[in-house]
Amino acid sequence: MAETNVMEQLVSLCKRRGFIYPASEIYGGLNGFWDYGPLGVLLKNNIRDWWWRNMVITPPIGPDGHPVDIVGLDSSIIQNPKTWVASGHAGGFSDPMVDDRESKNRYRADHVWVREAEGIEKKRVYVAIKATSEAHAADAWQQFKDKGKLPQEFRTKLSFEVRKHLEGAVAYRDVPFTQLTVEEQAQVIGPDVQVPGTLTEPRQFNLMLKTQIGAVDPIEAYLRPETAQGIFLNFKNVIDTTRVKVPFGVAQIGKSFRNEVTPRNFIFRSREFEQMEMEWFCHPDEARMWYDFWKQQRMDWWKSLGVSDAKLRFRDHAQDELSHYSKMTVDIEYQYPFTAPDFGELEGIAHRGEFDLTQHQQHSGQKLDYFDQDLQLKLKEQGVSPEEIKAKSRYVPNVIEPASGLTRAVLVVLCEAYRRDPNRQGTEELLSIKPQFAPIKCGIFPLVNKEGMPEVAEKLYLDLRQKITCEYDPKQAIGRRYARMDEIGTPYCVTIDGQTKEDQTVTVRERDSMQQERVALDQVKAYLLEKLGM
Amino acid sequence: MAETNVMEQLVSLCKRRGFIYPASEIYGGLNGFWDYGPLGVLLKNNIRDWWWRNMVITPPIGPDGHPVDIVGLDSSIIQNPKTWVASGHAGGFSDPMVDDRESKNRYRADHVWVREAEGIEKKRVYVAIKATSEAHAADAWQQFKDKGKLPQEFRTKLSFEVRKHLEGAVAYRDVPFTQLTVEEQAQVIGPDVQVPGTLTEPRQFNLMLKTQIGAVDPIEAYLRPETAQGIFLNFKNVIDTTRVKVPFGVAQIGKSFRNEVTPRNFIFRSREFEQMEMEWFCHPDEARMWYDFWKQQRMDWWKSLGVSDAKLRFRDHAQDELSHYSKMTVDIEYQYPFTAPDFGELEGIAHRGEFDLTQHQQHSGQKLDYFDQDLQLKLKEQGVSPEEIKAKSRYVPNVIEPASGLTRAVLVVLCEAYRRDPNRQGTEELLSIKPQFAPIKCGIFPLVNKEGMPEVAEKLYLDLRQKITCEYDPKQAIGRRYARMDEIGTPYCVTIDGQTKEDQTVTVRERDSMQQERVALDQVKAYLLEKLGM
Repeated sequence: MAETNVMEQLVSLCKRRGFIYPASEIYGGLNGFWDYGPLGVLLKNNIRDWWWRNMVITPPIGPDGHPVDIVGLDSSIIQNPKTWVASGHAGGFSDPMVDDRESKNRYRADHVWVREAEGIEKKRVYVAIKATSEAHAADAWQQFKDKGKLPQEFRTKLSFEVRKHLEGAVAYRDVPFTQLTVEEQAQVIGPDVQVPGTLTEPRQFNLMLKTQIGAVDPIEAYLRPETAQGIFLNFKNVIDTTRVKVPFGVAQIGKSFRNEVTPRNFIFRSREFEQMEMEWFCHPDEARMWYDFWKQQRMDWWKSLGVSDAKLRFRDHAQDELSHYSKMTVDIEYQYPFTAPDFGELEGIAHRGEFDLTQHQQHSGQKLDYFDQDLQLKLKEQGVSPEEIKAKSRYVPNVIEPASGLTRAVLVVLCEAYRRDPNRQGTEELLSIKPQFAPIKCGIFPLVNKEGMPEVAEKLYLDLRQKITCEYDPKQAIGRRYARMDEIGTPYCVTIDGQTKEDQTVTVRERDSMQQERVALDQVKAYLLEKLGM
Repeated sequence: MAETNVMEQLVSLCKRRGFIYPASEIYGGLNGFWDYGPLGVLLKNNIRDWWWRNMVITPPIGPDGHPVDIVGLDSSIIQNPKTWVASGHAGGFSDPMVDDRESKNRYRADHVWVREAEGIEKKRVYVAIKATSEAHAADAWQQFKDKGKLPQEFRTKLSFEVRKHLEGAVAYRDVPFTQLTVEEQAQVIGPDVQVPGTLTEPRQFNLMLKTQIGAVDPIEAYLRPETAQGIFLNFKNVIDTTRVKVPFGVAQIGKSFRNEVTPRNFIFRSREFEQMEMEWFCHPDEARMWYDFWKQQRMDWWKSLGVSDAKLRFRDHAQDELSHYSKMTVDIEYQYPFTAPDFGELEGIAHRGEFDLTQHQQHSGQKLDYFDQDLQLKLKEQGVSPEEIKAKSRYVPNVIEPASGLTRAVLVVLCEAYRRDPNRQGTEELLSIKPQFAPIKCGIFPLVNKEGMPEVAEKLYLDLRQKITCEYDPKQAIGRRYARMDEIGTPYCVTIDGQTKEDQTVTVRERDSMQQERVALDQVKAYLLEKLGM
């Protein structure tokens, strides 16, 4: 089975079974937006709660053997616009774009590939196509050679003269538009047009969504492109109003928005998404140690979701790839079906140094440094001079940031769980989700909807649902009910049948093995709680 | 203690203890936006999870003695803009505003009150002030009479001539700007100016926040002003992809945005807020029955938060007060400190009829009716004619909507819990939050941070936190630690002291009574779980 096929099948299953729907589907949808259906929201909440538990409720044991301190936060999606000037998002957070003055189309600059074709008498023609990479562009021109025309996706409308020139070219090269000189750019025939010189030079296009706040004298504001800045804005509030001391973390889960030029790969890159970010504030001298600590913690966390080791890896950012704020960054990558055999971004752990607090300090005029009482005491005990103590005890903390996407985590859990097995009964498809994260933990079925079975089943349902998320379903052939539960990843199904009345037992069916076991009715709850590790 | 004072004290406590901060505070804030701090987010999550549990995980027992069906959803904040045309928000969801051409100020039209003062020789002068009600306006003019000037809040700059005219007036009346004729409006002296005729006529001002989506050919879109429409958009998806049958509900929790002209009363009316809405789809003939059912269910739910009966009441909307979509609406109201002795809006339960599904059906061209198989069978059994069965079995369901605010629920729990008692030790202030919703359930303290006490306390903390949200705090005088826990609403504190080493007991202190009890160390967990009803 081809890997792209897997994504199509998964997207289809997610729609068909109520995990994820295209947003506003009855109005033709909206590119880059998705709605989480009845099962999708349960799955997402389970992952959300697990991250929150591991960060805020039971934070991990630190290198010193004691649990670390992390508190939670839920800051506004819309903040004072000065926030984004300080963070650098209002300036540089953008993809360069090229506009076509004639067709009015707009393209990502790095997706405009130009073939420079030299004909007889050194005449040069520049033809642009819409391609995502050099290989993609090469593929286009190969098809032009083989079939005499470019496929529709590359958006070209070659005139007869240009076609002839290309076919008779004696030399050519393929160059991204951004690497041409301004003089060369002016000679390019854009995609969708037939004459040269209609493309603008590349311009920055900000990825933040804008809005206007206020009825009287409205001001321009932004939807946050990341939750992190809301944490930096509240650094001083948290220090002043809670009992935390450096080192400590502030964790937040919430929606962010980016006006992606090309949303793609299902919920991998969407315009509205949900993040899980933690900012860890520490002494500059300990930043590297904490970077390594969180790097390992976060990898362990992804494995705790049931993601296999072989599909996860670290990738250190090269020096020239680092964001402006970062001293060092490592990505945790996952082998998505749409990247395989390659890997794609899953979570970034960044050493942000003192960049953020210093920026907000400068832009707000508020002191965002930290007076370290413990360090002061320690230095005093070491006999350090008062001047040096004073200088060293007050500093701007460094930040280590593990930043991941909740909606991306949903995607990874779904990709990891999706199986197809022609030998299974009822359905070939199966979501082998780790039971802890399954939207429904147990399906409860009367074998037939009569003979006293529904009464027993409903009573069991009302008892179990207090502890275990259950679904009661009294109708349909039992095989179809099992098949549906397999497809939505329900680890256990309990069936009340004819024998139940006689010996007070029920069958419990396990999803992956399809094995059935008879369990005493009054033991089902304990049985499931144990199996589910609850 | 004056009631307005209570709000000031509560807002101050919320800030000082890390419940709720003004958003972007270091940049001077942003009117109508709030951030939930470490304790606020825990409190909010506890209420969120309780609503979700009562709606989606263990929905209530219906009138027929069986549990009702409700599924969850999490739809996008940004939807296809056609959504808001169909819902009526793009057209009518707005407050009329008046602009001042000279001062460039903008006012809510219903907050501009005009005094028409008739002087000698029938000369009439129209003076506008900024007032929220007729009583507010009357208060202004009373102060003018008593003190010879209008207080600053009413925003007037009376010229000498106008002042003289007002003082010598022989007759006058106070009228809202909107009720004047166009000719009269043209003679009004606006607030903030000294000459007549600078105010525009009232204009609609849409409460939805706008944004633009897409890099290539951007389209205008909106941030949702309510979560409800995301549910209607997915009615067909839910019907087609889950096992629910009418009657059933779809529940959603999420952020919504309204560009309120005057955000006010702390988090009561903010521009970014979080809603908890459930849309209940039922047969038209049963809508009234379900309306009564949900009305009672929702009142019971508010009481389950620990809100006292005396501060809750129902208020039916009068016929002329109903929204365009509603056949009948009842509000659950709460006696807020800023409304007392009056009540203010808390939750609305609306009978929306078939308005929403019909609107989206018309605008999308998609069939949003329901084929009721159970009803078909029933009619067949009753011997109804095939034509009548066909006609009756397919219908557009009616909707009953209990719609409340999560952030407003946080406010109510805080208002209800806030107490001041000069006789308490350590602090006069107390948040007597129902233990189930308290952000921290248990504080764990070594009496002193030595003599083996921290080791015992930390071990207990690591055990308890698996089940109970705890905070470990080894420093400060014990009285101050208790006082802080009282102020943040922690129902229990466990202290490890000198006696612990000798007899393996600890003290457990209860928040409201301040009573202490000695409990065996190995029994603390069971003791707390029982007290907390977990």
